[in-house]
Amino acid sequence: MTVQPDHSRFCAWIWLAALALLAPGCTVWQVGDIAPDYVNGSTHRGAEVLAFDAESKVLASGGWDGDIALWVLGSGKPERVWQAHDGFVLGVAFIGDQLVSGGQDGRLKSWSRTGQALHSIDTGSGITQLAVLNGRVVTGHKDGSVRAWTLPAFDASMHLMLHDGNPVSALAVDAKTGRIASGGYGGRVFLIENSGRTREL
Amino acid sequence: MTVQPDHSRFCAWIWLAALALLAPGCTVWQVGDIAPDYVNGSTHRGAEVLAFDAESKVLASGGWDGDIALWVLGSGKPERVWQAHDGFVLGVAFIGDQLVSGGQDGRLKSWSRTGQALHSIDTGSGITQLAVLNGRVVTGHKDGSVRAWTLPAFDASMHLMLHDGNPVSALAVDAKTGRIASGGYGGRVFLIENSGRTREL
Repeated sequence: MTVQPDHSRFCAWIWLAALALLAPGCTVWQVGDIAPDYVNGSTHRGAEVLAFDAESKVLASGGWDGDIALWVLGSGKPERVWQAHDGFVLGVAFIGDQLVSGGQDGRLKSWSRTGQALHSIDTGSGITQLAVLNGRVVTGHKDGSVRAWTLPAFDASMHLMLHDGNPVSALAVDAKTGRIASGGYGGRVFLIENSGRTREL
Repeated sequence: MTVQPDHSRFCAWIWLAALALLAPGCTVWQVGDIAPDYVNGSTHRGAEVLAFDAESKVLASGGWDGDIALWVLGSGKPERVWQAHDGFVLGVAFIGDQLVSGGQDGRLKSWSRTGQALHSIDTGSGITQLAVLNGRVVTGHKDGSVRAWTLPAFDASMHLMLHDGNPVSALAVDAKTGRIASGGYGGRVFLIENSGRTREL
């Protein structure tokens, strides 16, 4: 895996770009046309979640197999893959120099950028959604709860029982206001103010 | 073949009622304790996707029923709900003063902030993921393609056939570098550079 400029490829790319500009409408590029570098076969059994870090240097992917892979972008460094959860990895996010992951197994875990385990807690309910809001981790759970956690040890700072026990299917966070919105399989949508005050939309 | 969004995997789960022992300092709020304002019953049949706008004034939610709801936050204005897609709404995002939505029906649509239809195109393949990257819309599809579109008329600016025809299950975008990462049901992870150059991780 290298990012050294490759002349022939660069020229091929310019050629393709010129073609794209000339061709009316949309150009369909097959992967084969741009000769991707196949580092290995299939990383995960299914790739479920992806996150770039804030410095755009590392990509984390989480899979159906419970594995997390860390990809150092734009370098020749080998990627790391390790078993992080039992069952699906359903959320990954970077906070500063830590990677946080949540799994179907209900575990919330933090890792160094080299994949070393830092903290792990059992939340007691499968994590279906994971987001980062102003340095806190926000999770949605199978039991309908929406929770917030502070680093480094995942101290629980909020625990709302919502969605009538239906799994949380969507989370959105707004850094400006500290608001959290959650949606559930039951179809209800809640807005959680920074104060913790919650109302159904 | 129908794209099964990630709710389907919960179908076989046995619901667990047990909550983990809560860390000291954590408060469990039942919805009833904080008297949420019930605007109406259940908005969607299932709430699938959520997005705040950049000004933190509007929240959009998309449901399993194809409906989109717009919520004006912090005001007494009534929300709007309308049928936007056939089948699941699988992506919503704001770009400036427009709302963009993608559906299981393969349609990519834009709306004003008051819910007026602006543009609509048929992409030909169910949209499974939707993200915004530096003013462009990026979509992942049931046929494994990752595409990019410019506003206002959804002109196609990129169309990559990836993931061996398996549905795209994850998209991540990095505004700083213009990079896109995509994951598929087949487990492969691709990194798409701003130039369009694509490689498998």
